[in-house]
Amino acid sequence: MIDFGTRLRQAVDAHGRLCLGIDPHSSLLQTWGLPDTAAGARSLALHAVEAARGRVGIVKPQAAFFERFGAAGYTVLEEVIATARAAGFVVIADVKRGDIGSTAAAYGAAWLSPGSPLEADAMTAVAYQGLGSLDPVIEIALEHGKGVFVLTATSNPEGRGVQQSVSGSGRSVAGQLARDVAVRNAGKTGWGSLGVVIGATEPITTSGIDPVLLQHTPVLGPGFGYQGSRLSQLDEIYGVAAGSVIPTVTRSVLAAGPEGLAAALDAHRAELAA
Amino acid sequence: MIDFGTRLRQAVDAHGRLCLGIDPHSSLLQTWGLPDTAAGARSLALHAVEAARGRVGIVKPQAAFFERFGAAGYTVLEEVIATARAAGFVVIADVKRGDIGSTAAAYGAAWLSPGSPLEADAMTAVAYQGLGSLDPVIEIALEHGKGVFVLTATSNPEGRGVQQSVSGSGRSVAGQLARDVAVRNAGKTGWGSLGVVIGATEPITTSGIDPVLLQHTPVLGPGFGYQGSRLSQLDEIYGVAAGSVIPTVTRSVLAAGPEGLAAALDAHRAELAA
Repeated sequence: MIDFGTRLRQAVDAHGRLCLGIDPHSSLLQTWGLPDTAAGARSLALHAVEAARGRVGIVKPQAAFFERFGAAGYTVLEEVIATARAAGFVVIADVKRGDIGSTAAAYGAAWLSPGSPLEADAMTAVAYQGLGSLDPVIEIALEHGKGVFVLTATSNPEGRGVQQSVSGSGRSVAGQLARDVAVRNAGKTGWGSLGVVIGATEPITTSGIDPVLLQHTPVLGPGFGYQGSRLSQLDEIYGVAAGSVIPTVTRSVLAAGPEGLAAALDAHRAELAA
Repeated sequence: MIDFGTRLRQAVDAHGRLCLGIDPHSSLLQTWGLPDTAAGARSLALHAVEAARGRVGIVKPQAAFFERFGAAGYTVLEEVIATARAAGFVVIADVKRGDIGSTAAAYGAAWLSPGSPLEADAMTAVAYQGLGSLDPVIEIALEHGKGVFVLTATSNPEGRGVQQSVSGSGRSVAGQLARDVAVRNAGKTGWGSLGVVIGATEPITTSGIDPVLLQHTPVLGPGFGYQGSRLSQLDEIYGVAAGSVIPTVTRSVLAAGPEGLAAALDAHRAELAA
């Protein structure tokens, strides 16, 4: 079994490290001339997967935009994930799940267990209950060659109250979490299978995160091109961790509509290569 | 429109304040002699709702245990929520969702918008990105007479690193969050529509939470009878906030199986009344 960190690195080596977010938001469905229904979301998402072929190696569907259609939305999400995986993409389910004990394990089973209808290659998770609370998820992930990206720092200003609070170690909550994840990847020669989500518009050191720690920890960076950061700023924002960043573009690509999607993706690829 | 805090209070006045958690966990399905499938989960959950009639006024299905069956599990969850609401229960969807902007709004739309397939009366949410990040969820809730319970403190030891970190105000993360939620309920004569989730086995002051603040803020207390706390300890754990607590029993009731369920629930009611 190839571990997730290795597979992620292979996808990046083959297609570059850009990740396409798949968010069938109601305003985007309108832009696309699609109904704000599960069928509309299906059309947008499958079209996005098709346009991503050969252009990126990683896609990240956002579960919230499917969940709003209930079971019908989840039927579509199952199909989108399965289609993308069958086409060879690394699929990161952006679900930000978190809980303790057997409930955490149930989330892991839902998104990472082989044969589960929603089986993805990795999921995002939240550690408000401590990184240790995610152990049941991490255990399922590592057992099956899957990955977990732990939400660590976010660019929204309201996040600072929690993320920049100071833990007993003297580190910020975000800094401590990044360190705890990095420790679990220690000893890897390439990337480990546990990653962090760090959305940033300013240097990550502002959140108390030490970029040096993240050499072997993949960093999912959401919201490029839309939430205010540009792909040309990777070094400036992530410092020496820039090489570990998987930058995600979503709205800025999807807003180009079905006709402009591929070109918008190519433009972002060119920007990243520059 | 009656606001959520008022409806919750009415349910408590009519049926007492015990809440039945509905967790179709695989080991519980086995205890019940049911298959570990969406159909098994449906059987357990609908039976639990039936047994709860006249015994409690509030039920709390845990989404993770349905999500592991993908869209089929969500179809069951839709039916369970709708059945319980039609029977007059206040239904709290335990989903612990959290995100920012339009993604947060999509979660609010999924669980709290009238007419949504998964429409509940309230949902649990996580504020790792700050209470302000949940504003789109809270806005949808208040507009439609729904409630939001924000995960504030949990009894698992790994949670302390984050929850007891010290924020800029000098308060713990948990204490600051509880205060921020309470501020939003200020001016209510009864309960406000924003609550907190505080799972505790020791006094909540240990987490830096001031119980005096929570007079008008409903407090969801999970895991009684299973995670180590007893219903007789409410005063000891929650102090002067004990009157705001909705204690939830789940495993200790469901483990009694289909035959013993009602009696187990009655025993917990008697313990709470004592």
